[in-house]
Amino acid sequence: MDEAIERLQRIASLRRGVLALGGGLPAPELFPREALARAFDDALATPRCEALQYGWPEGRSDLRAWIARRLRARGADVHARDVVITAGAQQAIAVACEALLVRGARVGVDAETYPAALELFRTRGATPVVARDVAVRYVMPGIANPRGDALSSDARAVILASSRAIIADEAYAELRFDGARERPLLADAPERVWHVGTFSKSLCPGFRVGWLVPPRAELARVRRIKHDIDLQANSLGQAVLAALLRRFDVDAHLARAAALYRARAERFARALRASLPSFRFRDPEGGFSIFVETDAGGDDARFLEIATAHGIGFDPGRIFRASQRSSPIALRLCFSAVRDDLLDVAVERLARAWRAFAARRTHGDVGVRNAAGASSRRRHD
Amino acid sequence: MDEAIERLQRIASLRRGVLALGGGLPAPELFPREALARAFDDALATPRCEALQYGWPEGRSDLRAWIARRLRARGADVHARDVVITAGAQQAIAVACEALLVRGARVGVDAETYPAALELFRTRGATPVVARDVAVRYVMPGIANPRGDALSSDARAVILASSRAIIADEAYAELRFDGARERPLLADAPERVWHVGTFSKSLCPGFRVGWLVPPRAELARVRRIKHDIDLQANSLGQAVLAALLRRFDVDAHLARAAALYRARAERFARALRASLPSFRFRDPEGGFSIFVETDAGGDDARFLEIATAHGIGFDPGRIFRASQRSSPIALRLCFSAVRDDLLDVAVERLARAWRAFAARRTHGDVGVRNAAGASSRRRHD
Repeated sequence: MDEAIERLQRIASLRRGVLALGGGLPAPELFPREALARAFDDALATPRCEALQYGWPEGRSDLRAWIARRLRARGADVHARDVVITAGAQQAIAVACEALLVRGARVGVDAETYPAALELFRTRGATPVVARDVAVRYVMPGIANPRGDALSSDARAVILASSRAIIADEAYAELRFDGARERPLLADAPERVWHVGTFSKSLCPGFRVGWLVPPRAELARVRRIKHDIDLQANSLGQAVLAALLRRFDVDAHLARAAALYRARAERFARALRASLPSFRFRDPEGGFSIFVETDAGGDDARFLEIATAHGIGFDPGRIFRASQRSSPIALRLCFSAVRDDLLDVAVERLARAWRAFAARRTHGDVGVRNAAGASSRRRHD
Repeated sequence: MDEAIERLQRIASLRRGVLALGGGLPAPELFPREALARAFDDALATPRCEALQYGWPEGRSDLRAWIARRLRARGADVHARDVVITAGAQQAIAVACEALLVRGARVGVDAETYPAALELFRTRGATPVVARDVAVRYVMPGIANPRGDALSSDARAVILASSRAIIADEAYAELRFDGARERPLLADAPERVWHVGTFSKSLCPGFRVGWLVPPRAELARVRRIKHDIDLQANSLGQAVLAALLRRFDVDAHLARAAALYRARAERFARALRASLPSFRFRDPEGGFSIFVETDAGGDDARFLEIATAHGIGFDPGRIFRASQRSSPIALRLCFSAVRDDLLDVAVERLARAWRAFAARRTHGDVGVRNAAGASSRRRHD
């Protein structure tokens, strides 16, 4: 990614007094801290203390069985042996890329999608394109980033009609506001779907525990790749999760989470429509964010710079775009980790920043200063 | 790796009653469980609960500062900003490979070395060779796997005399029995040493927390690679470690660990010399293992199969060899995680297995049956 953007995002997320609407972070008040403390005690109390020792490349069998059960309940023929635990969804996508992509390959994506997947494709020498004649299709069924929309049945049919490999990233699939769980693509094309999931959005990102269900014929290769890249997912997070899941009601937790995010989305959307009527967006059906589009030209990094000075941060639209275009200006606004009483404040600041940006555009200042200094990656999923 | 070998190693490590001398596992009785339980409580009690949230690709700054301080104390000019936290040493090596290796490259290694690094080089399309005209040198200074020997000053001088990039894997460097800490290679060639370290051997593998200190000019690229492959190392393990290190005396812990491993090494070596006088090995100077060489031809996988039937497992020599040769038979024996009262039992079983193997070799049964069935990666570091 553009190093100037990274630097601006770091500033926005670290500077005191800046309300960060970037990053795709879950609400920390949803973290089940007490249940986790008990789970940690349980995990450390086992005789062999697997939580602290090496494990196998494919991960803990109880965790894999839990993941498989939930996928079976949605119609997929998945068993524990089909699941490989990864360091979050990002590593699951990276492993699929390593198995699927050659340099120069075209990866089919939505016009806007998960930025770290786009970056990964590009650094692997592949090109993300909005097209059908591609080697691999990357899609976020369930709920897509950044719009928070569900995959339509038409789009689903088109994706399944082709014979290409599909990376199906379900990072947000369990955070639909209506609680619906679609049949996973995996259920209909198990021989070419690389199914990706994670606990990062539904429980806690800090575990870095996700999963990949590759086509069965690719399992041995996937375990080999996983072993090559880091031996195994961290045993501590896996053990604590496994202990937690033995007595924690995940579905009740997901219902609480969906209710909280839905309420925030509605309040945030109302405030946006009132204060920023020129912003176009659809109400999200799930997930953490609203994707706003505008008719304004100019540079989204410049707007981010101005917004940060007004005490508000966001993710600039260009990082979600397969085209990488910065204009017309778009922005992803994550309501997920903003306290309820600050949602209106966030929108007020954004509106002030937008007016300031518009005034400067009128006066010809449309460039972004080249941000020098530290280059570093963003914090995002 | 050979799938037959993997399968045999899994059987050896999982079958009840088999004493596993493979795997490079630390002694679980050294895990500081009580201090970790307090550290977990501390990590969860912070207002923002960073332990459960996303972090930055380079990792926690307090942890990076701690690592940098220890390297500075050994003579290297390293600061927190130079350190990138990784998912163990294996990922640090994998990141260095991604930055350094092109397909067809030759990587200079010792004749026997860490198997997962050899595998990684091979699957990346590089060839590990025992030679000087190579693109990159991989070395384990401090204490090398599998022999547990320290890098001689002559070998060190030869490595530093060349101008090639060096991956310096210090996984075992803090587990020298004499407590000595050499000046890291990084201190003498910071512009081309990729320094690799980990908490896996010195504290607990379950965290999957290690580090990479790349040349400064490569830092931005390394952070980008790290972000691409899994966004960041797990926050939970990092937070618990950071909390632990604030009040845990690591040097006292390392002294206890070195004393325990030294005592096990000495007892194990004595028993080996008494029961298996044809086994050749040097007493290790640190680490977890003894590397045994023999004059016997045949197949080390066949010997492993027989040994497992006699209730003893080990790591066959071929996996450590750059040449991948299975003959003459060699074996790595890890004494690290075997209870003191079982060390002699382990050697007795090994001796019985060796006699049985020798008897079969005399009768012409030197092949290994092709192990069918599940293919999977080994548990090893």
